[in-house]
Amino acid sequence: MRFQFHGDQTSIEAELVKHTALRSLASVHHTEKVISGDEKAAQALRRGKGSSLWNTIEAARSGGADAVISAGNTGALMAISKLILRMAGGLDRPAIVSSWPTRTGVTAMLDVGANIESDAAQLVEFAIMGEAFYSAVHAAPGQSVRVGLMNVGSEEQKGHEEVREAHAILRGGAIELDYFGFVEGDDIAKGTVEVIVTDGFTGNVALKTGEGLARFFAAELREVLTTSGPLAMLGAALARGALNKLRTKLEPPGGGPLLGLNGVVIKAHGGGTASSFADAVKIAADLAASDYAAKAAANMQRLATALKASGSATETVQ
Amino acid sequence: MRFQFHGDQTSIEAELVKHTALRSLASVHHTEKVISGDEKAAQALRRGKGSSLWNTIEAARSGGADAVISAGNTGALMAISKLILRMAGGLDRPAIVSSWPTRTGVTAMLDVGANIESDAAQLVEFAIMGEAFYSAVHAAPGQSVRVGLMNVGSEEQKGHEEVREAHAILRGGAIELDYFGFVEGDDIAKGTVEVIVTDGFTGNVALKTGEGLARFFAAELREVLTTSGPLAMLGAALARGALNKLRTKLEPPGGGPLLGLNGVVIKAHGGGTASSFADAVKIAADLAASDYAAKAAANMQRLATALKASGSATETVQ
Repeated sequence: MRFQFHGDQTSIEAELVKHTALRSLASVHHTEKVISGDEKAAQALRRGKGSSLWNTIEAARSGGADAVISAGNTGALMAISKLILRMAGGLDRPAIVSSWPTRTGVTAMLDVGANIESDAAQLVEFAIMGEAFYSAVHAAPGQSVRVGLMNVGSEEQKGHEEVREAHAILRGGAIELDYFGFVEGDDIAKGTVEVIVTDGFTGNVALKTGEGLARFFAAELREVLTTSGPLAMLGAALARGALNKLRTKLEPPGGGPLLGLNGVVIKAHGGGTASSFADAVKIAADLAASDYAAKAAANMQRLATALKASGSATETVQ
Repeated sequence: MRFQFHGDQTSIEAELVKHTALRSLASVHHTEKVISGDEKAAQALRRGKGSSLWNTIEAARSGGADAVISAGNTGALMAISKLILRMAGGLDRPAIVSSWPTRTGVTAMLDVGANIESDAAQLVEFAIMGEAFYSAVHAAPGQSVRVGLMNVGSEEQKGHEEVREAHAILRGGAIELDYFGFVEGDDIAKGTVEVIVTDGFTGNVALKTGEGLARFFAAELREVLTTSGPLAMLGAALARGALNKLRTKLEPPGGGPLLGLNGVVIKAHGGGTASSFADAVKIAADLAASDYAAKAAANMQRLATALKASGSATETVQ
């Protein structure tokens, strides 16, 4: 693996000096222009050419890079990626997928923030992209990849209209995936299904709620073990290795791939640690080496048929 | 405090026999009819008269009870409560509020499932109900109660139209409450504000995501301490008291009050423990003894003015 760094050369070189192994695998591409964190996507599109973000994505298009990783402005990353790389076969908009540890494996959830509102067809696209992503990156050989649709109850009559419509399309069976049905918030950590589909607003709130709680639990655990008297402190010292293992598992996922593009783009966690950033690099490498794109494209060809077939399915639900 | 039990007399008496202190404070009111967990609200309204749920709520209306607690069908509880108790001064629909522990206190979030979709005016109502609830039940004397609106970013242009409209109304200042602005999912556990307002779909997903994660963390903690060798096991044994304290704190809140009714109705957690049910009883008692209803009513009188004033505020946002 080799690394291209796009940005302020002086700052990057100053860091690379401390990491000689990485430096021998790295090239630095200087850019003056920066897209700030609060810049609107439309503005970033207009004036972004030549910025570090733009040049990184351009490198992925021209073949100089197999994957892009950025911890910058999410809206700008998405808009510029869509402009430069374009959406893969028939997909409408990118979705960000987030992978959560569970008791038995990993649950992937999408969208976690690329789209504020999503209609039924988009939710079905998320199901297709998510299933292809999970199969390519997380699934063991032969593992079935079940897809669930986030709702507030398992009864058919519950939930937004878009959710009920998407449910009817996925139930219809025209798309080749293992559709489980409705799931709820607690199914994320339970690992009831491998992939959970939801709109970007709900997904983003759920993701950040989880990140906040993980930090809260880690802080509470530290506090309760250091302020509950000498026995608890001794116990914590003895169990330190085990507790550190748990702390690592509680760290938020390092990176969320933007799915649906002609190329691999990873949104890294802005507030992440070095190890969570390394995690994002691993996801990027896995995805670039996988058959994700081909798998998603094959299923997208089935979506048009499925959407046509869903006309009648939708009527029976409403 | 005294307790009325509505339901199958034989089953209730069989439990009360084991709790003599409670039995001396309890009366049992036999009913044959039961509303099942999967019954639709409309059906429960039609055939619910004489059921245990109906009779319990009727007791609150007639003055026989100061508060209602039920772990039954949420939709039926809400519909029958609304029919029998009616909404308090001008409020449109009940909202369920959930109280989360934070590092420094409690964050109350509403709605967590009574309403699938909420327009801007309803979100503002939730802000009013939530602020009055927090002041009555959780706030220390003189504590300021800040209200935040859940969104996917703190920038003004982000989020659903309803959310941006509600933001404009609350920013307008016609309603007497300490409006903080937009918050995100991780602000729940951070305790950035005292009250977080969101629609029932997003709130329900966030609540259940949090419950699922709390169970996951507790299970992971148990596992890592019992399977990481003898030192970790010894450490865990020594720290048992402290860890149990943490486990109790991680338990999901015992009950979510239905706010906005002429009366106190608590939705208890169906899958809760004895101690979480006791927690629901405490919330009911606190709320019944408080000036919550008067405080919410006073602010509702200001809402009509505020909504009128918001006509222009809303236009500037769209």
